[in-house]
Amino acid sequence: MKDKSIAAVMEKANEPLRMREFPIPEVKEGCVLVKTLASGVCGTDVHCWRGQVKMPLPMILGHESVGTIDKLGTGRSADSMGEPIAQGDRVFWVAGHPCGKCYGCVVLKDTTVCSGRRAYGTSYSCADYPYLAGGYSEYVFLTERSFLFKVPEAVPSEAAIAFGCGFPTAVKGFEVIGGVRPGTSVLIQGAGPVGLSCVVLAKLGGANPITVMGAPQARLEMARRLGADHAIDIAPLARPEDRVKKAREVAGEADLCIEASGFPGAVAEGVELVRANGRYLVMGVFSDLGPAPVNPSIIVRRNLKLFGSVFWEPRHLHEVLRLLALYNDRLKLEDAVSAKYALENATQALQDVEALKCVKAIISPCAA
Amino acid sequence: MKDKSIAAVMEKANEPLRMREFPIPEVKEGCVLVKTLASGVCGTDVHCWRGQVKMPLPMILGHESVGTIDKLGTGRSADSMGEPIAQGDRVFWVAGHPCGKCYGCVVLKDTTVCSGRRAYGTSYSCADYPYLAGGYSEYVFLTERSFLFKVPEAVPSEAAIAFGCGFPTAVKGFEVIGGVRPGTSVLIQGAGPVGLSCVVLAKLGGANPITVMGAPQARLEMARRLGADHAIDIAPLARPEDRVKKAREVAGEADLCIEASGFPGAVAEGVELVRANGRYLVMGVFSDLGPAPVNPSIIVRRNLKLFGSVFWEPRHLHEVLRLLALYNDRLKLEDAVSAKYALENATQALQDVEALKCVKAIISPCAA
Amino acid sequence: MKDKSIAAVMEKANEPLRMREFPIPEVKEGCVLVKTLASGVCGTDVHCWRGQVKMPLPMILGHESVGTIDKLGTGRSADSMGEPIAQGDRVFWVAGHPCGKCYGCVVLKDTTVCSGRRAYGTSYSCADYPYLAGGYSEYVFLTERSFLFKVPEAVPSEAAIAFGCGFPTAVKGFEVIGGVRPGTSVLIQGAGPVGLSCVVLAKLGGANPITVMGAPQARLEMARRLGADHAIDIAPLARPEDRVKKAREVAGEADLCIEASGFPGAVAEGVELVRANGRYLVMGVFSDLGPAPVNPSIIVRRNLKLFGSVFWEPRHLHEVLRLLALYNDRLKLEDAVSAKYALENATQALQDVEALKCVKAIISPCAA
Amino acid sequence: MKDKSIAAVMEKANEPLRMREFPIPEVKEGCVLVKTLASGVCGTDVHCWRGQVKMPLPMILGHESVGTIDKLGTGRSADSMGEPIAQGDRVFWVAGHPCGKCYGCVVLKDTTVCSGRRAYGTSYSCADYPYLAGGYSEYVFLTERSFLFKVPEAVPSEAAIAFGCGFPTAVKGFEVIGGVRPGTSVLIQGAGPVGLSCVVLAKLGGANPITVMGAPQARLEMARRLGADHAIDIAPLARPEDRVKKAREVAGEADLCIEASGFPGAVAEGVELVRANGRYLVMGVFSDLGPAPVNPSIIVRRNLKLFGSVFWEPRHLHEVLRLLALYNDRLKLEDAVSAKYALENATQALQDVEALKCVKAIISPCAA
Repeated sequence: MKDKSIAAVMEKANEPLRMREFPIPEVKEGCVLVKTLASGVCGTDVHCWRGQVKMPLPMILGHESVGTIDKLGTGRSADSMGEPIAQGDRVFWVAGHPCGKCYGCVVLKDTTVCSGRRAYGTSYSCADYPYLAGGYSEYVFLTERSFLFKVPEAVPSEAAIAFGCGFPTAVKGFEVIGGVRPGTSVLIQGAGPVGLSCVVLAKLGGANPITVMGAPQARLEMARRLGADHAIDIAPLARPEDRVKKAREVAGEADLCIEASGFPGAVAEGVELVRANGRYLVMGVFSDLGPAPVNPSIIVRRNLKLFGSVFWEPRHLHEVLRLLALYNDRLKLEDAVSAKYALENATQALQDVEALKCVKAIISPCAA
Repeated sequence: MKDKSIAAVMEKANEPLRMREFPIPEVKEGCVLVKTLASGVCGTDVHCWRGQVKMPLPMILGHESVGTIDKLGTGRSADSMGEPIAQGDRVFWVAGHPCGKCYGCVVLKDTTVCSGRRAYGTSYSCADYPYLAGGYSEYVFLTERSFLFKVPEAVPSEAAIAFGCGFPTAVKGFEVIGGVRPGTSVLIQGAGPVGLSCVVLAKLGGANPITVMGAPQARLEMARRLGADHAIDIAPLARPEDRVKKAREVAGEADLCIEASGFPGAVAEGVELVRANGRYLVMGVFSDLGPAPVNPSIIVRRNLKLFGSVFWEPRHLHEVLRLLALYNDRLKLEDAVSAKYALENATQALQDVEALKCVKAIISPCAA
Repeated sequence: MKDKSIAAVMEKANEPLRMREFPIPEVKEGCVLVKTLASGVCGTDVHCWRGQVKMPLPMILGHESVGTIDKLGTGRSADSMGEPIAQGDRVFWVAGHPCGKCYGCVVLKDTTVCSGRRAYGTSYSCADYPYLAGGYSEYVFLTERSFLFKVPEAVPSEAAIAFGCGFPTAVKGFEVIGGVRPGTSVLIQGAGPVGLSCVVLAKLGGANPITVMGAPQARLEMARRLGADHAIDIAPLARPEDRVKKAREVAGEADLCIEASGFPGAVAEGVELVRANGRYLVMGVFSDLGPAPVNPSIIVRRNLKLFGSVFWEPRHLHEVLRLLALYNDRLKLEDAVSAKYALENATQALQDVEALKCVKAIISPCAA
Repeated sequence: MKDKSIAAVMEKANEPLRMREFPIPEVKEGCVLVKTLASGVCGTDVHCWRGQVKMPLPMILGHESVGTIDKLGTGRSADSMGEPIAQGDRVFWVAGHPCGKCYGCVVLKDTTVCSGRRAYGTSYSCADYPYLAGGYSEYVFLTERSFLFKVPEAVPSEAAIAFGCGFPTAVKGFEVIGGVRPGTSVLIQGAGPVGLSCVVLAKLGGANPITVMGAPQARLEMARRLGADHAIDIAPLARPEDRVKKAREVAGEADLCIEASGFPGAVAEGVELVRANGRYLVMGVFSDLGPAPVNPSIIVRRNLKLFGSVFWEPRHLHEVLRLLALYNDRLKLEDAVSAKYALENATQALQDVEALKCVKAIISPCAA
């Protein structure tokens, strides 16, 4: 077993990540040391790197990762669902840790609104124990609090990581709204990992038609491959009214509209595109980019239901892996991983994701 | 039986209503002729009169009324719930008529989004049969399509009409959101008939604390009488941030926020006042007064649920009358009727309601 | 236009149906005369014929039928969803008529529990106007109260009728429970039209695995063709404990169990097969065949949810036709029609259905 | 601080509890030592004592208790909701401990169906650390895993303990069914702590009428005091059909029926008493006392919904304390504590509870 790990460290916003070496802490009771196979480069990582998210520095980014177990602390013989685990097994771990004792955790029983929530790759500085918390690192050290799930044998690691945290985010959003049923018409705003995950869930659930609005072409192409009946390129549709008009022409009224774009203005447009008594799931606008001009009289007169949804819980990742075990044979999500970077090229990965150059980018610190 | 009826007619927007006489049509099979005891003056009537609502003229306004049965057509021996009715009985009728064959009526099974919805007092011109459709009239002629419910013996007519269509509107809104439970904290924006009805429903359901924001003082006083724990006068709180700050100080975070104000901006404020995982019922902004600057990142990060709700169905009026039969002994809603007008003073009633001079105004075309 | 119609009439329980001729009433305003292409032979028809269901005689059976419009009364230019209709168009009509004024219809807004419900083919004697109410007849006369939907061009009539009233029954049941989501494990008790419709809905919704328990082999074979992962023949499993054991071995615990068998005992077994926090949809046991020994401590200790569901409403038939338009290309439900009978052989059809000789039997009074 | 505690120990089923002395373990990090003010004698305790529940012996019974903090381990400065706590404060602790890593805990996110659930007073033998787990003891030792909530100042300890674990059980059951709304008619089977807690919740929520069926008179009297409109003594109603008939006469059909009796047969009766589309909450039949003859055709034909509910989670106890803080001024639940026993009389307490001699019995190991 190695006692040191190389990681790509963000020391200052907007500056290239620096390769640094860390001592690997002792793998005590309940802890797990994993060798990182693949760590997704999430849009949030870009926001972090650009200084738009408050976080302690220095930081090893990377909050959606798959790795092989290098060493198990005593007492850790099973994953969070009781599946036996051993050295060499592939696992996907949950980056977020709730506090377990706030109003959200206890009374609302919803750790996605935990007021003391911390997450690997976004809230633990690598200056502090256990140092190796983010996925842009050869090794990641999981403390005894971490949930982790074995990746099913038949599921390629790249399929598991393909939409990263976007997939469990979408699973949780679908749970919040009660899902779709066969024949539900769905309009999805945004073709990034969250939007594409919604295409998968909508398609598996028999929704029809499924329309995606987004950019660029490569992502729309992936949307079509995953089952979208229509994919609207928003590049030439500069004005909100153009987008609304086009969406109506192509998709008609939607039983369900999903905002997975990250742009506040999308919400104002989406409200106009939902059918009477329809539902609107808003997941993308996580960062506070200010208000959008929403017309509440539409919400009233059409009996609309809007559901915000943020983050996800361990069970949603469990569901992702279960769905992949059942359906990845035909989904082949690994095809969405369109760019792979060595650890030392992590900065380039961030830049490429920012420029929307890839459907999904991953960093591969270690070979399998 | 009389064969003519006097009614107050709106011939042109903004002009005084004119007293005119109409022939009473023959009371054919299934129809009912009622003598109007009390017709509420709804805020919507003011919007109609001010020309802000598209409607055919000339029009007899009045869509929330109680009257005594003057004549029953053959085959009408029971109200819409099977209660026997006879000449002299007091009834409350449903003004709205759905088309019964649109997507809303058939597929959504929700007549509140019927695309062919028409209503007595807002969509039937008195130039056409059955002429006497609005409540600002001595007699109202109910066709065979009309739902009507007997007013329970113990319920004063003025209690039944006190919050007019605002009460079933609130009942339907509460149905949409799944109601409150004991201990739910509720913040209500608006102290008109809809807002006050929400106070009643919240109080009956054990909500605590109940906070109302509105104006003027007489309405806030009524809110307190009905059980509001706090009533915030918004008159001195000119800016949105002042109102949000004050509401937070007084009410903390609300498990449930209810918009019953009619002002788009209230929605932007309300979104900031709901607790994580909380609900926001938006009912007041019926008229299209343009957009409000809503911040969707709050909706996302707090997992908020927003529910628009418009109109109501016959069962909601049935529930209103049932609740009054059970609880009006202690509610004494008749006390909310703070101004009564003879039919010939209907124009004055509209002006006084517009000026918020009364908690609730009614027109009494006929003595009981 | 013909002025007479031949029909197969049930004059007495258990006796052969008799071919009789009826005058066709005048097609007045709002009415529709249809020429019957296919009328399903439902298990309920057998119960009716065996005298197990109270009904007025003489009766033309047949409550699930597709026909071509022969004549439209004035004012009927569209189906119940506003689709234009004309002579020669194929339509599927709703047999049931709610009263519209009972507690169920008005307060519960659910016509499936209407206390005055009547239906073509089960409650209108052919001794009374409009005589031609049941589908075992060359012509059926639809009064102005009847809901009817155009059959989409691409959907074969036999696909539309393949599971008869079982399909909208299943659609309504799925609505009641909130449907399935991708990955939901489903166990279906019964392989008749309702059970097979549930296979279709579960499969379209991504449920996995789907297990059906039933008989005979032909129906289990159809279940497999429609997407069931497992089909358990209950013929050799005589005792409840054998069936429970086998189901557990094959399907494990079910997130959702569905009773579509008609046998009270199935409910006692099903309760043992649902996972903790799981749902149990009970639809099959319509006829009162007495109690079953259900163990309530299982319901309590596993937090089970049981949902009874009876009948359906027009919108559920609309959804059936919409789903067929979308998915019958791959479902090919017409293949489930395994036996077709001329009108004069209707008695034989009833006997064959009783003996479970067919997956689905239809009577075809007229060629298309 | 004392270093020993006296406790009443169950060494063998059906034998008198024996007073024994235990060493008090060191109060390490996160642990809490409490001095027991009051420990409820639950019906489950009687079942345990009678050997009907599998449990390790010797055992200190008592799973619903209030005490004062005697010593706080380091790091425990707040209760489970973040309220500061200190020596001398009164707290109510959660007896149950989920495993946190089973299908129920992780995937269903519902610790009430945890497959590894253990609870103070029913699953920890006093032969093992921390020895003092049950409430029939001067001192109780709470490990770092225990949830505990401060009892609000204004709430008497006896009010907090009055319905013991029955109150949070009822709160959770009401959560499962979505609660009541003003005017919901409720029929409650059983007048023990769970049934009486349901009266409280139904009354606070505006349900009307509220009918309780049970025995003996003292409990029915308490039901009336808490707001039941009708209380039916089942003592003279020996046969199921008598009870059903009486309930129908008194209460009509119930929108909501609640089984809180513990008798399987009650479920068969309750199914007949629920209105079409109504709900039936089954909570009482926890112990497996065998099946009841339930007629599933009633469930189908009336679209009934049955909900089983077992146990509760920390947030439900938090809600109990919050409701008491709001409403105990008028509820005065302390009046339900009709019998208090010294620790050495615990055996007598069990016998009296078994004989239904008290509304609620408590054991008071220490004076306040």
